[in-house]
Amino acid sequence: MADFSKIVLAGRPQGAPTPEHFRLEHGALPQAGEGEVLVRTIWMSLDPYMRGRMDDAKSYADPVPLGGTMEGGGVGEVIASHAPGFAPGDIVVGRTGWASHAALPADEIRKVDPSVAPISTALGVLGMPGHTAWVGLNDIAQAKSGETIVVSAATGAVGSLVGQLAKTKGMRVIGVAGGPDKCAFATDELGFDACLDHRAAPDWKTLSAQIKEAAPKGVDVYFENVGGKTLDAVLPRMNTWGRIAICGMIAWYSGQGVAEAAPLPVAWRTILTRRLRVQGYIIFDHNDRYAPFAQEVAPMVADGRIRYRETVAEGLENAPQAFLDLLKGGNFGKQLVRVGEDPGA
Amino acid sequence: MADFSKIVLAGRPQGAPTPEHFRLEHGALPQAGEGEVLVRTIWMSLDPYMRGRMDDAKSYADPVPLGGTMEGGGVGEVIASHAPGFAPGDIVVGRTGWASHAALPADEIRKVDPSVAPISTALGVLGMPGHTAWVGLNDIAQAKSGETIVVSAATGAVGSLVGQLAKTKGMRVIGVAGGPDKCAFATDELGFDACLDHRAAPDWKTLSAQIKEAAPKGVDVYFENVGGKTLDAVLPRMNTWGRIAICGMIAWYSGQGVAEAAPLPVAWRTILTRRLRVQGYIIFDHNDRYAPFAQEVAPMVADGRIRYRETVAEGLENAPQAFLDLLKGGNFGKQLVRVGEDPGA
Repeated sequence: MADFSKIVLAGRPQGAPTPEHFRLEHGALPQAGEGEVLVRTIWMSLDPYMRGRMDDAKSYADPVPLGGTMEGGGVGEVIASHAPGFAPGDIVVGRTGWASHAALPADEIRKVDPSVAPISTALGVLGMPGHTAWVGLNDIAQAKSGETIVVSAATGAVGSLVGQLAKTKGMRVIGVAGGPDKCAFATDELGFDACLDHRAAPDWKTLSAQIKEAAPKGVDVYFENVGGKTLDAVLPRMNTWGRIAICGMIAWYSGQGVAEAAPLPVAWRTILTRRLRVQGYIIFDHNDRYAPFAQEVAPMVADGRIRYRETVAEGLENAPQAFLDLLKGGNFGKQLVRVGEDPGA
Repeated sequence: MADFSKIVLAGRPQGAPTPEHFRLEHGALPQAGEGEVLVRTIWMSLDPYMRGRMDDAKSYADPVPLGGTMEGGGVGEVIASHAPGFAPGDIVVGRTGWASHAALPADEIRKVDPSVAPISTALGVLGMPGHTAWVGLNDIAQAKSGETIVVSAATGAVGSLVGQLAKTKGMRVIGVAGGPDKCAFATDELGFDACLDHRAAPDWKTLSAQIKEAAPKGVDVYFENVGGKTLDAVLPRMNTWGRIAICGMIAWYSGQGVAEAAPLPVAWRTILTRRLRVQGYIIFDHNDRYAPFAQEVAPMVADGRIRYRETVAEGLENAPQAFLDLLKGGNFGKQLVRVGEDPGA
């Protein structure tokens, strides 16, 4: 029988997390009860939102308890089924957590068709991040042809799809990313019209001037993934009746930079005088929009019109370090952990 | 022939304006050209937005030039007409400015029916402030029966109507106002469920605790007129999927309190985790919604279901001081200036 391993939360970080906040544990395989399947994790997803679950603070989801398995999504193979409609060998996606195996209720998992695209995409461009990008662009920001969009974290799992979908709509797309390699990827591979390196800009005013140059008609939509300097830079460039879809704010997740952030009145005044609509959203509220998203985007992934990039950490034991790197922007595209053998790869 | 008088902008304030920033001037009556009418101002409106026009800063409208007549709306009597459809004796509302007379294009004025309500209401509950309240509540905040709303500047021209309309929708209405007299008026005369005196609260946390008590099911809609401490207090009380309609932020108009305001990340995080929709709006964008507003609200004003209160300054020369008082919350209800004799009063 296979060994069972998991990563648990060993301590709550004050500020930036470190490897000491995680612990690898081993034990007995979980048991699948009635209506559940036992899944062997193949790919695990690392996402910025997981930082919030490490805090003992009320948010849209409960925190991970101390000693509890870190939460997250994974793709795996069914190795035992006590639920109709699922059989050993099926590939499924669900909330496996940071673990080698998971017993999951059948109504909380979804089958993945390995013939459409590599199964890892069920955690990225065809999974939660892709769904997030599509809902944010279409339902929240209500982006339209001819408009200009700024996408922060432009080469990340969400941002890279936001920008590519915006191009298919006929929008002008300006990415903001960290470093020249990511910016080159955004323009050369993803087809963005421009990409600005926020690390090369000494302050928000410089970045704001660069946005002005790249968006001569102003910014109609800002897809907010980061907060921080990028938000300060974009706000003065927003056009009247612009929309800001707040998907994340990774720059502030561990408390860094919060004290230096612009005061609220500046943003509030811009929202009023430019008549902006600023809306936060959490993808779990939009499950009814998964099917139309997948219907539109899966064919574009299958035939290569939509590109994606993955960074892979090898082995569950390396997940904590990969997560810490992700929080600092060290990943390039979708950050995955290879937990077990992929039969299709 | 009547004397012509006007108040001009004598200087641009740094911070709070003072009487020295205004100057009373006299001169020759303006001439109505083709397609225009000459109006004798009877009632003039004072509104917080006028503070923004005194700054030399790009906003949704051009600043008043130095030496130019202060802008504003007024109700008056047509004394000469060069436009079809208007005759001497007609009562009209339009952008008279702070002046005893104005020549106004016929397509920028609207006739007022003196049989519906006192003509001063064309500047208040049935005018721009009333229209602002109705659009904010219905179109921007999309407020619904059974929800809880917090209305700041609760007894002001806009806030008092927001709260009364919310009551007619079957909402729970909590006002925030400055001083016990205003709060008593909000609950006893306007029918609000509760009203909190922000001046009596030593800090935003105290006010926030009071809101929690008054809104046991949380706050679904915040009608934002003030910014400052009240915003800090309401934000933590917002329910998931809440809406904030930003109509004004009088607490910050002259720069006071901006440095002490909460940092942007706190608000941004609340918008994300509670999935709030925050939207600024300017009533001039919503002229197409004046007719449905008037159709709904005018009968309720005529039969007394909707109450309103006015503070009147006597004489154009007293407009500057009344405006300075308004910015400090010294008015009670709609602030008007009686510029000339009202034939219906």
